[in-house]
Amino acid sequence: MTHRIDFQPDPTNYKHWNVSYDGPVAQLVMDVDETEGLFDGYELKLNSYDLGVDIELSDIVQRMRFEHPEVKVIVMQSGKDKVFCAGANIRMLAGAEHAHKVNFCKFTNETRNTYEAAEQDSGQKYVAAVRGSCAGGGYELALACNHIMLVDDHTSSVALPEVPLLAVLPGTGGLTRVTDKRKVRRDLADVFCSVEEGVKGKRAVDWRLVDEVVPNSKFDEIVATRATEFAAASSKDDVAQGVLLTPLDRRFAEDGSVSYSTVEVTADRAARTVTVTVKGPDEDAPADMAAFQAEGAQAWMLRCARELDDAILHLRLNEPELGLIEFQTQGDPDRVIAHEKLLLENADHWLANEVLKYWKRVLKRVDLTSRSMVAIVEHGSCYAGVLAELLWSVDRSYMMLEEFEGDNRPMATITLSEANFGLFPMSNDLSRLETRFYGTPDSVDALRDQIGTSLDAEEAETLGLVTYAYDDIDWEDEVRLFKEERASFSPDAMTGMEANLRFAGPETMETRIFGRLTAWQNWIFNRPNAVGPDGALQRYGTGKRGDYNMQRV
Amino acid sequence: MTHRIDFQPDPTNYKHWNVSYDGPVAQLVMDVDETEGLFDGYELKLNSYDLGVDIELSDIVQRMRFEHPEVKVIVMQSGKDKVFCAGANIRMLAGAEHAHKVNFCKFTNETRNTYEAAEQDSGQKYVAAVRGSCAGGGYELALACNHIMLVDDHTSSVALPEVPLLAVLPGTGGLTRVTDKRKVRRDLADVFCSVEEGVKGKRAVDWRLVDEVVPNSKFDEIVATRATEFAAASSKDDVAQGVLLTPLDRRFAEDGSVSYSTVEVTADRAARTVTVTVKGPDEDAPADMAAFQAEGAQAWMLRCARELDDAILHLRLNEPELGLIEFQTQGDPDRVIAHEKLLLENADHWLANEVLKYWKRVLKRVDLTSRSMVAIVEHGSCYAGVLAELLWSVDRSYMMLEEFEGDNRPMATITLSEANFGLFPMSNDLSRLETRFYGTPDSVDALRDQIGTSLDAEEAETLGLVTYAYDDIDWEDEVRLFKEERASFSPDAMTGMEANLRFAGPETMETRIFGRLTAWQNWIFNRPNAVGPDGALQRYGTGKRGDYNMQRV
Repeated sequence: MTHRIDFQPDPTNYKHWNVSYDGPVAQLVMDVDETEGLFDGYELKLNSYDLGVDIELSDIVQRMRFEHPEVKVIVMQSGKDKVFCAGANIRMLAGAEHAHKVNFCKFTNETRNTYEAAEQDSGQKYVAAVRGSCAGGGYELALACNHIMLVDDHTSSVALPEVPLLAVLPGTGGLTRVTDKRKVRRDLADVFCSVEEGVKGKRAVDWRLVDEVVPNSKFDEIVATRATEFAAASSKDDVAQGVLLTPLDRRFAEDGSVSYSTVEVTADRAARTVTVTVKGPDEDAPADMAAFQAEGAQAWMLRCARELDDAILHLRLNEPELGLIEFQTQGDPDRVIAHEKLLLENADHWLANEVLKYWKRVLKRVDLTSRSMVAIVEHGSCYAGVLAELLWSVDRSYMMLEEFEGDNRPMATITLSEANFGLFPMSNDLSRLETRFYGTPDSVDALRDQIGTSLDAEEAETLGLVTYAYDDIDWEDEVRLFKEERASFSPDAMTGMEANLRFAGPETMETRIFGRLTAWQNWIFNRPNAVGPDGALQRYGTGKRGDYNMQRV
Repeated sequence: MTHRIDFQPDPTNYKHWNVSYDGPVAQLVMDVDETEGLFDGYELKLNSYDLGVDIELSDIVQRMRFEHPEVKVIVMQSGKDKVFCAGANIRMLAGAEHAHKVNFCKFTNETRNTYEAAEQDSGQKYVAAVRGSCAGGGYELALACNHIMLVDDHTSSVALPEVPLLAVLPGTGGLTRVTDKRKVRRDLADVFCSVEEGVKGKRAVDWRLVDEVVPNSKFDEIVATRATEFAAASSKDDVAQGVLLTPLDRRFAEDGSVSYSTVEVTADRAARTVTVTVKGPDEDAPADMAAFQAEGAQAWMLRCARELDDAILHLRLNEPELGLIEFQTQGDPDRVIAHEKLLLENADHWLANEVLKYWKRVLKRVDLTSRSMVAIVEHGSCYAGVLAELLWSVDRSYMMLEEFEGDNRPMATITLSEANFGLFPMSNDLSRLETRFYGTPDSVDALRDQIGTSLDAEEAETLGLVTYAYDDIDWEDEVRLFKEERASFSPDAMTGMEANLRFAGPETMETRIFGRLTAWQNWIFNRPNAVGPDGALQRYGTGKRGDYNMQRV
């Protein structure tokens, strides 16, 4: 594999961010090393970023929650003079393949969503303290914070100059957050997104683009005051000791397979499919949260989430031709339920909360992965509680019915838990069961009666929990035919179809970002006006504007 | 202009549809003439359709409501043996330019939405009586009906074979209506959209794809019974006499300008802008609805809606390079209010209801037009009531402030009416004022106090009703600079930006179709897997499948 992108940076050696801690307030300083781009061919000038910069940010945000639960306020600032952040690096975008652009945007969007939700999920509030130019993806970094402060120095501004300058959209949530989160009046949003130089000073507050402007001379002081105030007002419990996120136990093989302690990734390049097998816990659940915390990153519920998360990201960025992900589980369903139960019963414990919220994010990451996905429920599997969510994340599912000759594993079952009824909402804010039974909401209520029951294939099919149940005679052919069929379809059509079918019903700001905004951006990323030889991205920095075909569609 | 597409077909000479009336039940028979395609190079076999077929359907649906208010149930059937409708013609799609494909889909979507809403808006219920193959766009025709009946004859089926067969999406609402309207379980939807041959018989009911299946031998009888039952159950008032939609008064000039009786379209090709001036009524409002009905299609409120609708469609399909639409109005605002008032006060009169509902559709058509739009509020203008909606349909607005030298027209004002507070919802189901003030809902309530007041530019700007108010000194430069700026941007980026900013807040099935579904389809319409020389669209009918790049993005 050429240049595998690694989503596990070394936290002792970040290249682009400095983090410092002082009780409940952390300082997060963006100071991009322009020579340390993830690929060759561009320099990360003016605090512009590429995927490598965002991988570090994502890691920091994650560690903030597990390793630094004492933190209640995070102040995001720039380590450069005169510029907060210039946004995604244009030369990187201009040189990147379409698929990389799309996956880069998806990952940065997920990172923005994660720290945006940190206040509600974990009581960690992000404050953007903006000094200097804050443009494009830079302003989108700030938009995902919970509070935006802008220095009033006659030059510092916020801007979304993508449309006039680059002929692409502010696609990392920019357009959606301006209207839906900041609730900027749509004609003012139109003006704002059309002016390269952006908006500064009082007008930025009047237009709702920032929460406050602060005189330059008092900026550091007022930022510090605000951080202290927010920390004091926080309802987050005081937690003295976090949990260290130790390095993942993983091995990459030549053939594309990856082994983690609880996740096995097996690629079949010829068939363009990959099997992701999640292994249930081997040990009994910790006795209490003290024991869980003592296990730390080795506790199965946390370890498995981290490994599955890493596996999904690896497949997305490094294995674009493995078009079908086949989920399997193997293990003892009762043990899965027992491990989960400890957290459910202690959901007000900070660490239990963090682990459950992390599973929410990992499962959303699965939903948003633009690969066809199927869950295979074999004998010996452990689709129980949180792992059962995989059944309804995927596009369809197949379950073994009755005994299979020569298969001595325990018969395939599915076990629901309380967690399946709202603890892991999708981006559309519905549970996976609510989304699945969007047409028959009563079915969801009825399923509550099944909590804790080992449901066999016939029951699971009748209850609508799996798509198909097949016995020994039909199983192999049906699963094989499905995989062959899926592998023969156009990947683009699959992506479009799945993006529509997976998110039935109501939309949220999050689904609007991944649905409406991203779909338009991907369209633009295919149009010559942006990416062609005379398009704006290629011409950026040459002093010449893009040469556009002026036909509207 | 080469081959101007005309949205005013001759109702005495439809080529593709037969309509017959029998009291409250109308029969709408699709019987496409394969030799009468809108363009050369394809034959409309198997009841497949192109834009010309849909223009006739749209015209029929419109006339049904105005000319045949006695109709309560419309039965849509096929005039062909063995096929209901094979969907959009593939050779037409394969040969069409990207912009035509996109606008074709938009118009067909608008037509589907129109007859889908006819039951709620006007008490006209559409029933699809499906015999034979009903595939792709054919099933989408049925999906937009309020009731779907399928013959149970072992061969008739409903299908969405676009993904496996053509590597594109069921983009005329298909994916969205399957999950959001029919509420098909998402894994079953995934199966359904993957099988070329579709689903038939009882399974089609079980999966919620149709409302009932009917034995072949009793099909005609049960369809007739169902129509009679629906008509009897209808709460629609009995109306004896409709209003004839007489031909539009319009003249096309060589330079691209078009003159209607109440709408003037003036193109500036060099600047790539077009001015659409709506002229207020010259005459006093009719005294009552009897007088209004006597005026019929000549009544200003109806005439103006028809002309504006036609002008917008003309610009969309025939003038792709006129990227900026500048709306103007000229006339007496009090007269506009008076004409509108008659309808508002008689909103329970069938014709008043129809005209108001038609304005709702026309204004939605404006919202969905992928051109930059600006409203210019000059002295002498009449942005009052329904015409004021244009101010908030557009991306931004400029208003003349105070007196202008040498301009003797009455000072520019804006007049709100009750109609601006919910009578003309956008696709997102919010009024344009609610969408505009999404961040400050109290502002909308406060605006109610202004109903009937002539608001000058200063007041209008303070209330947030216009973007900018400029006096004589700045006006010309500011408006010119805006137009030049807009004309310099990439049309694609504008389309994407406007599609995001115009529809803040909640999503509906309709916005999901035009936002999420359409954006993904447009992306796919740019991808080689669909439209390249070896893509599925080009290879359709050759016996060879598309040769796909298998990389997922």
